Amino acid sequence: MISKSQIKLITSLGQKKYRDKTGLFVAEGPKLVGELIQAAFSPHSIFTTEPSTTTISGQQEISEAELKKVSFLKTPNKVLGIFHKPAKERLENTDLTVVLDDIQDPGNLGTIIRLCDWFGVAQLVCSPKTADCYNPKVIQATMGSIARVRVEYHDLEMYLSNVSVPVYGAFMDGNDVYGQSLPQKAIVVLGNEGQGISAEIESRVTRRIAIPQYGKAQAAESLNVATAGAILLSEFRRATGK
Amino acid sequence: MISKSQIKLITSLGQKKYRDKTGLFVAEGPKLVGELIQAAFSPHSIFTTEPSTTTISGQQEISEAELKKVSFLKTPNKVLGIFHKPAKERLENTDLTVVLDDIQDPGNLGTIIRLCDWFGVAQLVCSPKTADCYNPKVIQATMGSIARVRVEYHDLEMYLSNVSVPVYGAFMDGNDVYGQSLPQKAIVVLGNEGQGISAEIESRVTRRIAIPQYGKAQAAESLNVATAGAILLSEFRRATGK
Repeated sequence: MISKSQIKLITSLGQKKYRDKTGLFVAEGPKLVGELIQAAFSPHSIFTTEPSTTTISGQQEISEAELKKVSFLKTPNKVLGIFHKPAKERLENTDLTVVLDDIQDPGNLGTIIRLCDWFGVAQLVCSPKTADCYNPKVIQATMGSIARVRVEYHDLEMYLSNVSVPVYGAFMDGNDVYGQSLPQKAIVVLGNEGQGISAEIESRVTRRIAIPQYGKAQAAESLNVATAGAILLSEFRRATGK
Repeated sequence: MISKSQIKLITSLGQKKYRDKTGLFVAEGPKLVGELIQAAFSPHSIFTTEPSTTTISGQQEISEAELKKVSFLKTPNKVLGIFHKPAKERLENTDLTVVLDDIQDPGNLGTIIRLCDWFGVAQLVCSPKTADCYNPKVIQATMGSIARVRVEYHDLEMYLSNVSVPVYGAFMDGNDVYGQSLPQKAIVVLGNEGQGISAEIESRVTRRIAIPQYGKAQAAESLNVATAGAILLSEFRRATGK
Protein backbone atom coordinates (compact mmCIF):
# COMPACT_ATOMS: atom_id res chain seq x y z
CA MET A 1 0.00 0.00 0.00
CA ILE A 2 1.27 3.45 -0.90
CA SER A 3 -0.04 6.66 0.64
CA LYS A 4 -1.20 9.78 -1.18
CA SER A 5 1.69 11.79 0.23
CA GLN A 6 4.16 9.14 -0.96
CA ILE A 7 2.66 9.25 -4.46
CA LYS A 8 2.93 13.02 -4.41
CA LEU A 9 6.57 12.87 -3.28
CA ILE A 10 7.60 10.38 -5.98
CA THR A 11 5.82 12.31 -8.73
CA SER A 12 7.42 15.57 -7.58
CA LEU A 13 10.89 14.01 -7.91
CA GLY A 14 10.47 14.05 -11.69
CA GLN A 15 11.22 17.78 -11.36
CA LYS A 16 14.66 19.18 -10.55
CA LYS A 17 13.13 21.82 -8.29
CA TYR A 18 11.81 19.19 -5.90
CA ARG A 19 14.93 17.01 -6.14
CA ASP A 20 16.95 20.07 -5.10
CA LYS A 21 14.53 20.97 -2.33
CA THR A 22 14.29 17.49 -0.81
CA GLY A 23 17.76 16.18 -1.65
CA LEU A 24 16.07 12.99 -2.88
CA PHE A 25 15.99 11.08 -6.17
CA VAL A 26 14.25 8.02 -7.63
CA ALA A 27 15.84 4.84 -8.99
CA GLU A 28 13.98 1.82 -10.36
CA GLY A 29 14.49 -1.88 -10.92
CA PRO A 30 15.96 -4.49 -8.55
CA LYS A 31 19.44 -4.37 -10.12
CA LEU A 32 19.89 -0.60 -9.96
CA VAL A 33 18.30 -0.24 -6.50
CA GLY A 34 20.46 -3.11 -5.24
CA GLU A 35 23.63 -1.54 -6.64
CA LEU A 36 22.85 1.82 -5.02
CA ILE A 37 22.31 0.17 -1.64
CA GLN A 38 25.50 -1.83 -2.04
CA ALA A 39 27.36 1.40 -2.87
CA ALA A 40 26.12 2.85 0.44
CA PHE A 41 23.59 5.27 -1.01
CA SER A 42 21.13 5.96 1.76
CA PRO A 43 17.55 4.82 0.99
CA HIS A 44 14.64 7.02 2.04
CA SER A 45 11.98 4.47 1.09
CA ILE A 46 11.73 1.39 -1.10
CA PHE A 47 8.54 0.13 -2.72
CA THR A 48 8.31 -3.32 -4.25
CA THR A 49 5.74 -5.62 -5.80
CA GLU A 50 7.80 -8.68 -4.81
CA PRO A 51 9.00 -8.27 -1.21
CA SER A 52 10.06 -11.90 -1.01
CA THR A 53 12.70 -11.48 -3.72
CA THR A 54 14.74 -8.78 -1.98
CA THR A 55 16.15 -8.44 1.50
CA ILE A 56 16.14 -4.67 1.76
CA SER A 57 15.03 -3.62 5.24
CA GLY A 58 12.06 -1.32 5.60
CA GLN A 59 10.64 -1.92 2.14
CA GLN A 60 6.92 -1.49 1.56
CA GLU A 61 4.86 -3.87 -0.53
CA ILE A 62 2.76 -2.23 -3.23
CA SER A 63 0.56 -3.60 -6.02
CA GLU A 64 1.48 -3.70 -9.70
CA ALA A 65 -1.19 -1.03 -10.31
CA GLU A 66 0.31 1.24 -7.64
CA LEU A 67 3.80 0.82 -9.06
CA LYS A 68 2.53 1.57 -12.55
CA LYS A 69 0.98 4.77 -11.22
CA VAL A 70 4.22 6.17 -9.77
CA SER A 71 6.86 4.61 -12.04
CA PHE A 72 8.83 6.80 -14.48
CA LEU A 73 9.44 3.75 -16.69
CA LYS A 74 7.34 2.58 -19.61
CA THR A 75 7.63 -0.91 -18.18
CA PRO A 76 7.78 -0.72 -14.37
CA ASN A 77 10.27 -3.18 -12.94
CA LYS A 78 9.28 -4.55 -9.48
CA VAL A 79 11.15 -2.03 -7.32
CA LEU A 80 11.13 1.75 -6.95
CA GLY A 81 13.49 3.36 -4.48
CA ILE A 82 13.74 6.89 -3.18
CA PHE A 83 17.32 7.71 -2.20
CA HIS A 84 19.13 10.60 -0.53
CA LYS A 85 21.58 12.34 -2.85
CA PRO A 86 25.11 11.78 -1.53
CA ALA A 87 26.77 14.65 0.33
CA LYS A 88 29.42 16.65 -1.52
CA GLU A 89 32.92 15.47 -0.83
CA ARG A 90 36.27 17.12 -1.24
CA LEU A 91 37.29 16.93 -4.91
CA GLU A 92 40.62 15.22 -5.46
CA ASN A 93 42.71 14.95 -8.57
CA THR A 94 44.57 11.78 -7.91
CA ASP A 95 43.63 10.20 -11.24
CA LEU A 96 41.58 11.14 -14.28
CA THR A 97 38.69 13.54 -13.68
CA VAL A 98 36.08 14.36 -16.32
CA VAL A 99 34.61 17.87 -16.39
CA LEU A 100 31.35 18.66 -18.23
CA ASP A 101 30.80 22.21 -19.43
CA ASP A 102 27.02 22.54 -19.88
CA ILE A 103 26.09 19.12 -21.31
CA GLN A 104 22.37 19.50 -21.93
CA ASP A 105 21.08 16.16 -23.15
CA PRO A 106 20.20 13.72 -20.33
CA GLY A 107 20.99 10.79 -22.64
CA ASN A 108 24.50 12.11 -23.28
CA LEU A 109 25.04 12.60 -19.55
CA GLY A 110 23.92 9.03 -18.79
CA THR A 111 26.20 7.66 -21.50
CA ILE A 112 29.17 9.66 -20.16
CA ILE A 113 28.58 8.38 -16.61
CA ARG A 114 28.61 4.78 -17.96
CA LEU A 115 31.78 5.57 -19.88
CA CYS A 116 33.49 6.96 -16.75
CA ASP A 117 32.53 3.79 -14.89
CA TRP A 118 33.98 1.60 -17.68
CA PHE A 119 37.28 3.48 -17.67
CA GLY A 120 37.50 3.73 -13.89
CA VAL A 121 37.01 7.50 -13.73
CA ALA A 122 35.58 7.93 -10.25
CA GLN A 123 34.89 11.66 -10.35
CA LEU A 124 32.77 13.70 -12.76
CA VAL A 125 32.54 17.46 -12.15
CA CYS A 126 29.67 19.26 -13.91
CA SER A 127 28.87 22.92 -14.45
CA PRO A 128 25.64 24.01 -12.73
CA LYS A 129 23.91 24.21 -16.14
CA THR A 130 24.73 20.62 -17.05
CA ALA A 131 21.72 18.24 -17.08
CA ASP A 132 20.84 16.91 -13.63
CA CYS A 133 22.27 13.45 -13.02
CA TYR A 134 19.42 12.76 -10.57
CA ASN A 135 16.82 13.14 -13.34
CA PRO A 136 15.04 9.74 -13.39
CA LYS A 137 15.93 9.32 -17.09
CA VAL A 138 19.63 9.85 -16.43
CA ILE A 139 19.63 7.59 -13.37
CA GLN A 140 18.14 4.77 -15.46
CA ALA A 141 20.39 5.49 -18.48
CA THR A 142 23.51 5.02 -16.33
CA MET A 143 22.50 1.36 -15.84
CA GLY A 144 23.95 1.33 -12.33
CA SER A 145 27.08 3.35 -13.06
CA ILE A 146 25.73 6.24 -10.96
CA ALA A 147 26.42 3.99 -7.96
CA ARG A 148 30.15 3.98 -8.75
CA VAL A 149 30.89 7.38 -10.31
CA ARG A 150 30.72 10.44 -8.04
CA VAL A 151 28.95 13.25 -9.90
CA GLU A 152 29.16 16.76 -8.46
CA TYR A 153 28.04 20.21 -9.61
CA HIS A 154 30.47 23.08 -9.12
CA ASP A 155 31.40 26.44 -10.51
CA LEU A 156 33.92 25.21 -13.10
CA GLU A 157 36.01 28.37 -13.28
CA MET A 158 36.56 28.25 -9.54
CA TYR A 159 37.26 24.53 -9.57
CA LEU A 160 39.69 24.71 -12.48
CA SER A 161 41.55 27.68 -11.01
CA ASN A 162 42.55 25.52 -8.05
CA VAL A 163 43.84 22.38 -9.73
CA SER A 164 47.47 21.43 -10.15
CA VAL A 165 47.06 18.78 -12.86
CA PRO A 166 46.98 19.50 -16.62
CA VAL A 167 43.57 20.38 -18.03
CA TYR A 168 42.85 18.82 -21.46
CA GLY A 169 40.20 20.05 -23.86
CA ALA A 170 39.45 18.99 -27.45
CA PHE A 171 39.51 21.69 -30.14
CA MET A 172 39.66 21.50 -33.93
CA ASP A 173 43.10 23.19 -33.87
CA GLY A 174 44.51 21.12 -30.99
CA ASN A 175 47.43 18.68 -31.14
CA ASP A 176 46.73 15.18 -32.46
CA VAL A 177 45.77 13.17 -29.35
CA TYR A 178 47.33 9.99 -30.80
CA GLY A 179 50.76 11.57 -30.81
CA GLN A 180 50.63 12.84 -27.23
CA SER A 181 52.32 11.46 -24.18
CA LEU A 182 49.34 11.56 -21.81
CA PRO A 183 49.69 11.71 -18.03
CA GLN A 184 47.90 9.51 -15.53
CA LYS A 185 46.62 12.44 -13.49
CA ALA A 186 44.65 14.88 -15.59
CA ILE A 187 41.36 16.63 -16.16
CA VAL A 188 39.47 16.09 -19.42
CA VAL A 189 36.91 18.79 -20.26
CA LEU A 190 33.95 17.96 -22.54
CA GLY A 191 31.92 20.86 -23.93
CA ASN A 192 28.31 21.63 -24.72
CA GLU A 193 26.63 19.76 -27.60
CA GLY A 194 26.17 22.83 -29.78
CA GLN A 195 28.72 25.33 -28.54
CA GLY A 196 31.63 23.15 -27.45
CA ILE A 197 33.79 24.37 -24.57
CA SER A 198 32.86 27.92 -23.50
CA ALA A 199 35.36 30.78 -23.76
CA GLU A 200 35.66 31.08 -19.95
CA ILE A 201 36.52 27.41 -19.57
CA GLU A 202 38.72 27.38 -22.67
CA SER A 203 40.97 29.90 -20.92
CA ARG A 204 41.51 27.30 -18.15
CA VAL A 205 42.50 24.54 -20.60
CA THR A 206 46.27 24.03 -20.47
CA ARG A 207 46.57 21.33 -23.18
CA ARG A 208 44.62 21.67 -26.42
CA ILE A 209 44.16 18.35 -28.16
CA ALA A 210 42.25 17.15 -31.24
CA ILE A 211 40.78 13.87 -32.40
CA PRO A 212 42.11 13.49 -35.94
CA GLN A 213 39.55 13.44 -38.72
CA TYR A 214 39.85 11.13 -41.73
CA GLY A 215 38.48 10.96 -45.20
CA LYS A 216 36.73 13.63 -47.20
CA ALA A 217 37.41 17.31 -46.78
CA GLN A 218 33.73 18.11 -46.21
CA ALA A 219 33.25 15.60 -43.46
CA ALA A 220 31.39 15.88 -40.15
CA GLU A 221 31.99 19.14 -38.32
CA SER A 222 31.98 17.54 -34.92
CA LEU A 223 31.53 14.33 -33.02
CA ASN A 224 28.78 13.69 -30.54
CA VAL A 225 30.16 14.67 -27.11
CA ALA A 226 29.83 11.19 -25.64
CA THR A 227 31.65 9.57 -28.56
CA ALA A 228 34.40 12.23 -28.38
CA GLY A 229 34.67 11.57 -24.64
CA ALA A 230 34.90 7.82 -25.31
CA ILE A 231 37.83 8.29 -27.68
CA LEU A 232 39.68 10.65 -25.31
CA LEU A 233 39.26 8.45 -22.22
CA SER A 234 40.28 5.40 -24.23
CA GLU A 235 43.45 7.25 -25.30
CA PHE A 236 44.29 8.25 -21.73
CA ARG A 237 43.87 4.70 -20.47
CA ARG A 238 45.74 3.17 -23.39
CA ALA A 239 48.61 5.64 -23.05
CA THR A 240 49.12 5.13 -19.33
CA GLY A 241 48.32 1.42 -19.34
CA LYS A 242 46.07 1.65 -16.32
CA MET B 1 1.50 27.31 -51.11
CA ILE B 2 1.42 23.62 -50.26
CA SER B 3 -1.29 21.24 -51.48
CA LYS B 4 -3.29 18.78 -49.39
CA SER B 5 -1.71 15.85 -51.18
CA GLN B 6 1.77 17.24 -50.49
CA ILE B 7 0.93 17.63 -46.79
CA LYS B 8 -0.35 14.06 -46.77
CA LEU B 9 2.82 12.79 -48.46
CA ILE B 10 5.18 14.58 -46.04
CA THR B 11 3.25 13.43 -42.99
CA SER B 12 3.19 9.84 -44.26
CA LEU B 13 7.00 9.88 -44.54
CA GLY B 14 7.19 9.88 -40.74
CA GLN B 15 6.33 6.19 -41.07
CA LYS B 16 8.74 3.56 -42.37
CA LYS B 17 5.95 1.82 -44.27
CA TYR B 18 5.44 4.84 -46.51
CA ARG B 19 9.15 5.57 -46.83
CA ASP B 20 9.60 2.01 -48.08
CA LYS B 21 6.60 2.23 -50.41
CA THR B 22 7.54 5.57 -51.98
CA GLY B 23 11.33 5.37 -51.74
CA LEU B 24 11.29 8.91 -50.35
CA PHE B 25 12.49 10.59 -47.15
CA VAL B 26 12.38 14.03 -45.54
CA ALA B 27 15.30 16.27 -44.55
CA GLU B 28 15.04 19.74 -43.01
CA GLY B 29 17.07 22.90 -42.64
CA PRO B 30 19.07 24.79 -45.31
CA LYS B 31 22.40 23.25 -44.33
CA LEU B 32 21.28 19.61 -44.42
CA VAL B 33 19.15 20.03 -47.56
CA GLY B 34 22.04 21.83 -49.26
CA GLU B 35 24.51 19.09 -48.32
CA LEU B 36 22.20 16.38 -49.68
CA ILE B 37 21.82 18.20 -52.99
CA GLN B 38 25.56 18.76 -53.16
CA ALA B 39 26.11 15.03 -52.53
CA ALA B 40 23.87 14.31 -55.56
CA PHE B 41 20.86 13.05 -53.63
CA SER B 42 17.91 13.47 -55.97
CA PRO B 43 15.28 15.93 -54.67
CA HIS B 44 11.60 15.09 -55.17
CA SER B 45 10.36 18.45 -53.90
CA ILE B 46 11.72 21.32 -51.82
CA PHE B 47 9.61 23.69 -49.73
CA THR B 48 11.00 26.90 -48.31
CA THR B 49 9.85 29.98 -46.46
CA GLU B 50 12.78 31.99 -47.87
CA PRO B 51 13.13 31.26 -51.60
CA SER B 52 15.53 34.16 -52.09
CA THR B 53 18.15 32.62 -49.80
CA THR B 54 18.60 29.40 -51.75
CA THR B 55 19.23 28.61 -55.39
CA ILE B 56 17.66 25.19 -55.53
CA SER B 57 15.69 24.77 -58.75
CA GLY B 58 12.02 23.85 -58.57
CA GLN B 59 11.54 24.89 -54.95
CA GLN B 60 8.10 25.95 -53.76
CA GLU B 61 7.51 28.88 -51.45
CA ILE B 62 5.40 28.14 -48.40
CA SER B 63 4.41 30.17 -45.36
CA GLU B 64 5.86 29.77 -41.85
CA ALA B 65 2.49 28.38 -40.75
CA GLU B 66 2.51 25.80 -43.54
CA LEU B 67 6.06 24.73 -42.70
CA LYS B 68 5.15 24.44 -39.04
CA LYS B 69 2.26 22.16 -40.00
CA VAL B 70 4.40 19.64 -41.91
CA SER B 71 7.77 19.94 -40.14
CA PHE B 72 9.05 17.08 -37.95
CA LEU B 73 11.19 19.57 -35.99
CA LYS B 74 10.21 21.39 -32.80
CA THR B 75 11.64 24.52 -34.37
CA PRO B 76 11.09 24.40 -38.15
CA ASN B 77 14.11 25.71 -40.05
CA LYS B 78 13.21 27.47 -43.35
CA VAL B 79 13.54 24.49 -45.69
CA LEU B 80 11.96 21.04 -45.93
CA GLY B 81 13.05 18.71 -48.69
CA ILE B 82 11.66 15.41 -49.89
CA PHE B 83 14.40 13.26 -51.40
CA HIS B 84 14.62 9.96 -53.23
CA LYS B 85 16.51 7.30 -51.26
CA PRO B 86 19.70 6.46 -53.15
CA ALA B 87 19.76 3.22 -55.16
CA LYS B 88 21.64 0.27 -53.70
CA GLU B 89 25.16 -0.01 -54.99
CA ARG B 90 27.60 -2.90 -55.06
CA LEU B 91 29.18 -3.23 -51.61
CA GLU B 92 32.95 -3.03 -51.67
CA ASN B 93 35.44 -3.72 -48.92
CA THR B 94 38.29 -1.52 -49.96
CA ASP B 95 38.59 0.20 -46.58
CA LEU B 96 36.83 0.04 -43.21
CA THR B 97 33.18 -0.98 -43.28
CA VAL B 98 30.92 -0.78 -40.22
CA VAL B 99 28.19 -3.39 -39.82
CA LEU B 100 25.24 -2.87 -37.45
CA ASP B 101 23.52 -5.95 -36.08
CA ASP B 102 20.04 -4.76 -35.02
CA ILE B 103 20.78 -1.30 -33.56
CA GLN B 104 17.36 -0.21 -32.34
CA ASP B 105 17.74 3.34 -31.06
CA PRO B 106 17.46 6.03 -33.78
CA GLY B 107 19.72 8.31 -31.70
CA ASN B 108 22.47 5.69 -31.60
CA LEU B 109 22.16 5.15 -35.35
CA GLY B 110 22.45 8.88 -36.03
CA THR B 111 25.50 9.15 -33.77
CA ILE B 112 27.16 6.18 -35.49
CA ILE B 113 26.58 7.71 -38.95
CA ARG B 114 28.26 10.94 -37.74
CA LEU B 115 31.10 8.89 -36.32
CA CYS B 116 31.61 7.05 -39.64
CA ASP B 117 31.71 10.39 -41.42
CA TRP B 118 34.33 11.72 -38.98
CA PHE B 119 36.55 8.68 -39.44
CA GLY B 120 36.05 8.50 -43.20
CA VAL B 121 34.09 5.24 -43.15
CA ALA B 122 32.06 5.53 -46.36
CA GLN B 123 29.96 2.40 -46.00
CA LEU B 124 27.62 1.28 -43.23
CA VAL B 125 25.82 -2.05 -43.68
CA CYS B 126 22.80 -2.61 -41.44
CA SER B 127 20.70 -5.66 -40.66
CA PRO B 128 17.08 -5.32 -41.81
CA LYS B 129 15.97 -4.94 -38.17
CA THR B 130 18.30 -1.99 -37.50
CA ALA B 131 16.52 1.38 -37.08
CA ASP B 132 15.71 3.08 -40.39
CA CYS B 133 18.30 5.68 -41.33
CA TYR B 134 15.60 7.53 -43.32
CA ASN B 135 13.54 8.14 -40.17
CA PRO B 136 13.30 11.97 -39.93
CA LYS B 137 14.85 11.86 -36.44
CA VAL B 138 17.87 9.93 -37.65
CA ILE B 139 18.31 12.10 -40.73
CA GLN B 140 18.43 15.20 -38.52
CA ALA B 141 20.64 13.54 -35.89
CA THR B 142 23.31 12.82 -38.51
CA MET B 143 23.77 16.58 -38.96
CA GLY B 144 24.55 16.16 -42.66
CA SER B 145 26.67 13.03 -42.36
CA ILE B 146 23.97 11.00 -44.13
CA ALA B 147 25.02 12.88 -47.28
CA ARG B 148 28.51 11.36 -47.09
CA VAL B 149 28.06 7.91 -45.55
CA ARG B 150 26.32 5.25 -47.66
CA VAL B 151 23.90 3.32 -45.45
CA GLU B 152 22.46 0.07 -46.80
CA TYR B 153 20.27 -2.68 -45.39
CA HIS B 154 21.23 -6.25 -46.15
CA ASP B 155 20.96 -9.77 -44.83
CA LEU B 156 24.12 -9.72 -42.71
CA GLU B 157 24.76 -13.47 -42.77
CA MET B 158 24.71 -13.46 -46.55
CA TYR B 159 26.84 -10.31 -46.75
CA LEU B 160 29.42 -11.54 -44.25
CA SER B 161 29.67 -14.96 -45.90
CA ASN B 162 30.98 -13.29 -49.06
CA VAL B 163 33.67 -10.98 -47.69
CA SER B 164 37.38 -11.58 -47.89
CA VAL B 165 38.50 -9.07 -45.23
CA PRO B 166 38.74 -9.84 -41.49
CA VAL B 167 35.54 -9.34 -39.52
CA TYR B 168 36.06 -7.75 -36.08
CA GLY B 169 33.57 -7.89 -33.25
CA ALA B 170 33.87 -6.74 -29.63
CA PHE B 171 33.27 -9.33 -26.90
CA MET B 172 34.07 -9.36 -23.18
CA ASP B 173 36.48 -12.28 -23.75
CA GLY B 174 38.13 -10.83 -26.87
CA ASN B 175 41.78 -9.77 -27.25
CA ASP B 176 42.75 -6.32 -25.97
CA VAL B 177 42.20 -4.00 -28.94
CA TYR B 178 45.08 -1.74 -27.86
CA GLY B 179 47.57 -4.58 -28.33
CA GLN B 180 46.39 -5.56 -31.82
CA SER B 181 47.97 -4.87 -35.15
CA LEU B 182 44.87 -3.69 -37.01
CA PRO B 183 44.54 -3.84 -40.81
CA GLN B 184 43.39 -1.02 -43.05
CA LYS B 185 40.73 -3.13 -44.76
CA ALA B 186 38.33 -4.65 -42.29
CA ILE B 187 34.75 -4.95 -41.15
CA VAL B 188 33.77 -3.81 -37.64
CA VAL B 189 30.51 -5.29 -36.31
CA LEU B 190 28.55 -3.42 -33.64
CA GLY B 191 25.77 -5.32 -31.86
CA ASN B 192 22.32 -4.61 -30.49
CA GLU B 193 22.02 -2.33 -27.44
CA GLY B 194 20.70 -5.02 -25.11
CA GLN B 195 21.80 -8.31 -26.66
CA GLY B 196 25.12 -7.43 -28.27
CA ILE B 197 26.15 -9.30 -31.40
CA SER B 198 23.73 -12.13 -32.21
CA ALA B 199 24.88 -15.77 -32.25
CA GLU B 200 24.44 -16.02 -36.04
CA ILE B 201 26.62 -12.99 -36.67
CA GLU B 202 29.11 -13.94 -33.95
CA SER B 203 29.86 -17.10 -35.96
CA ARG B 204 30.94 -14.86 -38.86
CA VAL B 205 33.32 -12.80 -36.69
CA THR B 206 36.91 -13.82 -37.43
CA ARG B 207 38.69 -11.58 -34.89
CA ARG B 208 37.31 -11.23 -31.37
CA ILE B 209 38.49 -8.05 -29.68
CA ALA B 210 37.72 -6.28 -26.40
CA ILE B 211 37.89 -2.74 -25.12
CA PRO B 212 39.80 -3.04 -21.84
CA GLN B 213 37.95 -2.06 -18.70
CA TYR B 214 39.62 -0.16 -15.87
CA GLY B 215 39.00 0.41 -12.22
CA LYS B 216 36.68 -1.38 -9.87
CA ALA B 217 35.75 -5.02 -10.26
CA GLN B 218 32.03 -4.28 -10.24
CA ALA B 219 32.15 -1.67 -12.96
CA ALA B 220 29.84 -1.08 -15.92
CA GLU B 221 28.78 -4.24 -17.72
CA SER B 222 28.89 -2.65 -21.12
CA LEU B 223 29.47 0.54 -23.02
CA ASN B 224 26.83 2.29 -25.07
CA VAL B 225 27.15 0.94 -28.62
CA ALA B 226 28.01 4.32 -30.15
CA THR B 227 30.77 4.97 -27.59
CA ALA B 228 32.16 1.45 -28.12
CA GLY B 229 32.08 2.08 -31.88
CA ALA B 230 33.89 5.39 -31.38
CA ILE B 231 36.72 3.70 -29.49
CA LEU B 232 37.07 0.90 -32.04
CA LEU B 233 37.09 3.19 -35.10
CA SER B 234 39.55 5.50 -33.37
CA GLU B 235 41.85 2.51 -32.76
CA PHE B 236 41.63 1.37 -36.40
CA ARG B 237 42.48 4.82 -37.70
CA ARG B 238 45.23 5.37 -35.15
CA ALA B 239 46.79 1.98 -35.87
CA THR B 240 46.89 2.35 -39.63
CA GLY B 241 47.67 6.04 -39.62
CA LYS B 242 45.06 6.85 -42.25
